[in-house]
Formats: sequence, C-alpha cells, structure tokens
Amino acid sequence: MSENKIPYKIYLEESEMPKEWYNVRADMKNKPAPLLNPGTLQPMSEEELGTVFCKELVKQELDNDNRFIEIPQKILDFYKMYRPAPLVRAYCLEEKLKTPAKIYYKFEGNNTSGSHKLNSAIAQAYYAKEQGLKGVTTETGAGQWGTALSMACSYLELDCKVYMVKCSYEQKPFRREVMRTYGASVTPSPSEETEVGRKILAEHPGTTGSLGCAISEAVEVATHTEGYRYVLGSVLNQVLLHQSVIGMEAKIAMDKYGIKPDIIIGCAGGGSNLGGLISPFMGEKLRGEADYRFIAVEPASCPSLTRGVFAYDFCDTGMVCPLAKMYTLGSGFIPSANHAGGLRYHGMSSTLSQLYHDGYMEARSVEQTAVFEAAEQFARVEGILPAPESSHAIKAAIDEALKCKETGEEKTILFGLTGTGYFDMMAYEKFHDGVMTDYIPTDDDLKVGFDGIPRFPGNME
Amino acid sequence: MSENKIPYKIYLEESEMPKEWYNVRADMKNKPAPLLNPGTLQPMSEEELGTVFCKELVKQELDNDNRFIEIPQKILDFYKMYRPAPLVRAYCLEEKLKTPAKIYYKFEGNNTSGSHKLNSAIAQAYYAKEQGLKGVTTETGAGQWGTALSMACSYLELDCKVYMVKCSYEQKPFRREVMRTYGASVTPSPSEETEVGRKILAEHPGTTGSLGCAISEAVEVATHTEGYRYVLGSVLNQVLLHQSVIGMEAKIAMDKYGIKPDIIIGCAGGGSNLGGLISPFMGEKLRGEADYRFIAVEPASCPSLTRGVFAYDFCDTGMVCPLAKMYTLGSGFIPSANHAGGLRYHGMSSTLSQLYHDGYMEARSVEQTAVFEAAEQFARVEGILPAPESSHAIKAAIDEALKCKETGEEKTILFGLTGTGYFDMMAYEKFHDGVMTDYIPTDDDLKVGFDGIPRFPGNME
Repeated sequence: MSENKIPYKIYLEESEMPKEWYNVRADMKNKPAPLLNPGTLQPMSEEELGTVFCKELVKQELDNDNRFIEIPQKILDFYKMYRPAPLVRAYCLEEKLKTPAKIYYKFEGNNTSGSHKLNSAIAQAYYAKEQGLKGVTTETGAGQWGTALSMACSYLELDCKVYMVKCSYEQKPFRREVMRTYGASVTPSPSEETEVGRKILAEHPGTTGSLGCAISEAVEVATHTEGYRYVLGSVLNQVLLHQSVIGMEAKIAMDKYGIKPDIIIGCAGGGSNLGGLISPFMGEKLRGEADYRFIAVEPASCPSLTRGVFAYDFCDTGMVCPLAKMYTLGSGFIPSANHAGGLRYHGMSSTLSQLYHDGYMEARSVEQTAVFEAAEQFARVEGILPAPESSHAIKAAIDEALKCKETGEEKTILFGLTGTGYFDMMAYEKFHDGVMTDYIPTDDDLKVGFDGIPRFPGNME
Repeated sequence: MSENKIPYKIYLEESEMPKEWYNVRADMKNKPAPLLNPGTLQPMSEEELGTVFCKELVKQELDNDNRFIEIPQKILDFYKMYRPAPLVRAYCLEEKLKTPAKIYYKFEGNNTSGSHKLNSAIAQAYYAKEQGLKGVTTETGAGQWGTALSMACSYLELDCKVYMVKCSYEQKPFRREVMRTYGASVTPSPSEETEVGRKILAEHPGTTGSLGCAISEAVEVATHTEGYRYVLGSVLNQVLLHQSVIGMEAKIAMDKYGIKPDIIIGCAGGGSNLGGLISPFMGEKLRGEADYRFIAVEPASCPSLTRGVFAYDFCDTGMVCPLAKMYTLGSGFIPSANHAGGLRYHGMSSTLSQLYHDGYMEARSVEQTAVFEAAEQFARVEGILPAPESSHAIKAAIDEALKCKETGEEKTILFGLTGTGYFDMMAYEKFHDGVMTDYIPTDDDLKVGFDGIPRFPGNME
C-alpha cells in the first residue's frame, strides 16, 4: 500500500488554494426561481432582502450572472487557519471492501466547529462586519452552524446571538459550551425574549422547540435590533456560493494528481455541503465539458428530493420568511423523533432543486441504522469518527464501491465527509445499544407537512 | 498578514515524514535509572518485563544505546492516515498579543482520539499483534489514551479491554461511546471482574475509582489471561520513543523553512508529549550542537517536577508495579477533586526526570483558572478549542510571548498543542460559570502521597 503514487492525504499549498468562489448559477440554463415576498407573491427586491440580510450577501443571493466572486483577503486569511481541507484517499476502506473502486473523500471536519459550516459562517460574518453592523443572529439545531458562526464572530469581534432549539440546548450542553467559549450568547428557543417566542410558549407551554421556531425568533431579533442582521447556514444561494470552496479545492487537488471522479456523492439536508462539493464539477457538466454522476443522499425520514414536490413553499415553519421554489415536504413537516442528527430541513436549496429537476443530479434516501453501520465500518478502518449527516454519503459511497466489486469496474468515487460526530455520541450510543430504529414516513405522513399552508401560484403543483 | 513567507500551516509531504523514531537516551550521559522489581529491588530483567509487556516493547524499554529505531511499515501506513500533524504559525495569536515573538505550535489533535496518544497506541498495538497476541489491556482516566488504543486495535483487529476510572465512565459517557465505536470493551473500575477490583469494592463500596486502581485491574487481567499483555500510554521510555515522531516532524518542518526555536514548551503529566516534542532538539543540546530552552509546564495541583522528590517510587497506587526513579509526589498522591482534565499522574517519566535533574530542562507550574483563560483566548483567535492539558503549554507560551513584548526580543517559541477539548466541555462550563477554583497543595498535603509507602534504597532521599 505504501508504494502508491497518490498520497493518503492531499493538502494543497497555500498558494494553490482557491482565491474565488464559483457561482454555479452563472452556468445554469434554467436559473433557480427567485425568492417571493409572502405578502405580495412578487420576487423579493434587493431592498426587501436588505432588511434581513447584509447588503453584499443580498447581492450574492441575487447574482445569477457572475461566474466567479473574489474571496476577500480577510476571509482567505481565516480559511488558512483551518484549510485547505485534505482530500483523502480511502485506501483502508478500499482494502476492507475489497473493491476495485478508488474512493476519495474531502474531509471538512478538521476544525472546532466540526463541519464545513465554517466556510460560509466566516463569509457571512465578514460582510456583516464590513457593513459596520454590531452583530448577527441565527438559529441552530444540532449546533454545528451555531458553533461555526460563533467562531467566525469571535475572530471578527462581532456580537453573535444564537437561538438553539430547546431540546438540543438541554441535550447537547457541550455544543452550547463550545459556543460560549467563543463568546456567543446562546438562548434556548422558544424564549421569552421575542414576541413569537412568548406566543408559542403561551400556546404550547411544554414545547421543546423546533428549528422553524428558532428561525422565527432569530429573524425577529435581527429585524427589530439596530445594527443586526440575520444569517442562515444552508439552503440559500449565497451559502452554496461560499461552500463552493469545498469543490474548488477538491478539483484543484484532483487535477494536480490527474484524478477524474466518475461519481460524486454528498449528503443533503438544505444542500450546503452537496452544493459546494459538486459545484465546479457541475459547472463542467452544464457547459458540456465533462460528465459526472452526482448523487444526493438524504435520510429516508426526511426525503425532500426523493419524495417531496417541486413547488414554492415557505422557508420556515412560522410562514414569515420568503417563499422559495424547491423540493419540499411542506413547511409543516417535522421529521420523526427517532431521527438522529441533522438533515432534517423540510426543503432543499433552490439551486440544487432546479438542477435535480432538470436531470443533472440523482437522489436516493437511506435509513439511519444502515447509515450508522456504514459510519462504524468507516471509523474502524479510516480512523475518523464521522458525523451522522456525513455518514449518509459514506453509506452511498460504500454501496457504489460494492457495485464496482460485483462488476469489476475501477470507478473513481468522491464523497464529501462533512464533519465529525464528537457531539453526536448519544446517537452512537443508541446504535451500540441496539435501540436505534428506522422510520419511513407513509404517504399520509408526508401530507401533514402541507396542512394549513396557503396555496400560492406554483405552490403544490 | 497574507504576504508572510511562512505559511499558516506547514504539512510535510508523505515522503518527508520521519521513518525512524529517535531514542534520546542514546545521547544522555546519565541514563535514566532502570525499573526495579518491587520484590527483589533489582533491575527488572527482560524476562520479568516480558510477562507484562510485549517482547519488542521490552527491548525498546531497555534500549539506552540505539539512537534511531526504524518505524515498521504498517505503523508508517497508519501514521499517514492522520499525520503529518501540522506545524502552525500562530499569526493571529501574535497579532492579538502584539508581541514581536514568533509563535509556532505542533498540533496533534487532528484525529478522533483527539490527542498525540495515538502515536504510541498504534506502535504498542502493532508489536502485540506481531507477537501473535489476542489482545491488550489498559486503563484510562480522562479517556484520551483509551480512545487512542481502541482506534489502533480496531485497525489491527486486536482485542482491546479498557478499565476506565468509574467517575470518568459515568461523567464522560461520550468518550466511552467513542471507544465502543472502535469495538473496545470498556469496564468501569473498580469492577467485579478482577481480584483487586473486588477487594477494593469490598473495602470501599462507594468508591468512584482511581487511575492507580484501574492500572492494577488492567495489569491483573493482562497477566492472568492467555495471549494478553498490558500497555501504558505515558511515563515509559518506549512511549517517549514513539512520541519522538512529534519532535522529528516539527524539526523537519522547521529546518525546511529555516526556523530555529529559542524556547520549546510542553505540558507535562507523565511526560509523553513533552518528551516526544523535545527529543530531537534535546539530542542536539546533549551533543552540544545547539542550545534551546525547554520548559515543562505542570498543574499547580499536581506539581511532580517543581515540588516532588527525585527518588524511586511505585508507578501505581496499588504498589504492585515496578519502581521507577523519577520526580514523584508519592504513589499515594491524588490531585484535589477540583482538578480538571489529565496531567494528574503522581510521577514523571524517568527519562525526563533525569534530564531535569541534570539541568537540561526547566519546569514551572500554573493554576487552572489561568490555564482556562489562556485556552479561551487561544480558541477565540486561533480557532482550535484546546484540551485542558494542552492549555498549560499555551499559558506558558503566552507568558513567554508577553515577556518578549516587554523586552522587544523577537524570540521564536514552539509549543506542543497536544489535543482538543471536545470531551472536556464540563470543565469549560465550570470556567464559564465562574465556579472553577484553583488549588495549590500545602507542603503537608504533599506529604500524604508518601504515607504508608515502604522506604527503599534511594526512595524518598
């Protein structure tokens, strides 16, 4: 094994790291549909979006034309603290599977936030700081995004208010402490601090919260506090833009060693990691320069691409945020309680939704006990203990590698290992104790997500 | 900041990684004193040691002559999965401190065990496998060593039995789950599984265990089970030998960029990280080829180097293991309950003890609230959330950098960042909540460690 030409890990030199983000929308024939104002049902204007998001980020959100966006120097400097992320050749996994496939993964977990979320957190915090803002607000569920944003804000000396879904706040005290270490204020949601929080608490006194509710609180505080804006860790076009650094680095590293992937696999919740990883490869496919198979992997318990509808829907449960056209299970959908980890968003990035709709990408769903089996198998041979989210991609990569074993094909597989599972050991414990269960919603279960949601043009079509 | 010639992070190429461990004992004029058989008070023979440790490791333990030991290919392959560890230029910390000092740290936390312990775990597991053994036993307190050994054993398909101090087992369920993910059996100590465990439970029914007790259980199981041996994560000469990979890599990286450290700093518990980090530099100093200041940093609550005696003492609380000549607080010493994290061993590596005794190294102790202040300051600018143990070195590095600020000296400081604090958030929580306390034992407190310990020649002198 030691005489292979390809090293176990490829780290780019600092001078080789990307200096620009790649905007895949510039190469899309069918652009992602614009966000709609829920009151007027008209596309959100730059001005309207500017009351919630920073100016520069609004520009990026609306920019369907510029193929490359220069990464500001301060962000490049921050990237150098935890990037380049290694491109790893999974020699040990290949050997274990006895597959002729060549497996690579881009590992984004080598930073304290434990995931790729930091790539966009620093960008969003940077533009807030540049705009002269005092701080930003956000929500967090599992805690990866909140941690990433706390780190970025700490570096830039920007105030950071995180609304953390109450059950996570209580069950994941360590995530909360990491955020406190970086100086963020962390409030369990719903809280008494906001109107929407007080209203929900009055109606449901014992509620343990939801991501949708935390979003509503964070947006309320941002729009009602001088010098604050709201930031979001996934779904948005701007987030996919920032996350393109994952794919850019992967592509530079692969090109350097003459590696061409046949299949590119990523887990998909809101789409930030998958969109970032595939973007430069997708660009080549859109321009007809190369062909790749792209596979989005989602939980069977939250199957927005594989079982959702492509329609306009609210981005939040509270139905106060803009409408996005996307594959959605309905903004009232909440994954079953036995679902561990993230990837629990009811919708999917509009950009990825459009690409999927146009046939550029495949999607599949996997069940969680199979995901944890793959996670454990991976950990034991490759060393890294993966996040439950990332393990969805591992599962699909192993399945594809085993197909190659059957057919004898030497395909090259690249997957995104978005992060580590160090704060997800309660889920691993359930798996070890044999009490983890699977859940596949029935068609009737899936109807619930649209209950009580007004029908708009193009919604539910 | 972006135009500095030295990158933020230096990763060696695989081809540049060390192929040999460096044995500092070969360059020491005064060799570390041999381990003594507690029954005969004679140096432990190869045969005697072989009942507890693997043959090859016994040879390494006793080898005071060979300067370099070749690293077996299988271990080199494993190292490639998580090494090289980056040598990081702490540009952001320097800027924050406004110091003319140049600060570097060797970061050993980029692996799932979260620390440098994996460097020796894989070596010890490898030699056990080569000897045809079925498995190994060990103890773990905070859990870093147990996790590292579990990972190494999983990779080599070797059985791994870990005795985990009961209070850690209960307070750190996540560490336990990580070990289970890698297939290790984890038993809270004291347990009903061993004679010594049953005896202790009978005498102290409510005990929450101690490292000394867990060692005794692990040794008993190893010596009473066919095909098993005991392994230890620090203190021993063999461990310092394996950990020399830290210093070798650091030195190769520094030489490559023409960097010469003036001061080298490491935290010190049993000495594995400090001994590994300084070894090749110490070799140059011992051979008169270069001069460096070495600083060992230990907790004020467990000050073996700064307040212990240099004498023969038992390596374990149960007084069944061999005697080592070392700086010790007495094998009966247990750090106060408010002490967070590791670095709680009563003694210090014989090799480092001898070097300290001979004046080649300095030592200082620091209090834990100051250590956590340094940890938080570091995390906020450098991104990485450090382990409490590693933060002792951070504290001393910051202090030295601030001295440079006063004097205007542009010294180059290298310190060892041994690991991450992701499983230590309970200690961080105490710090954030303002309930963390300091404790400096009185001279009377320190006498307790020697209570009831038989006096041997050279013991307590």
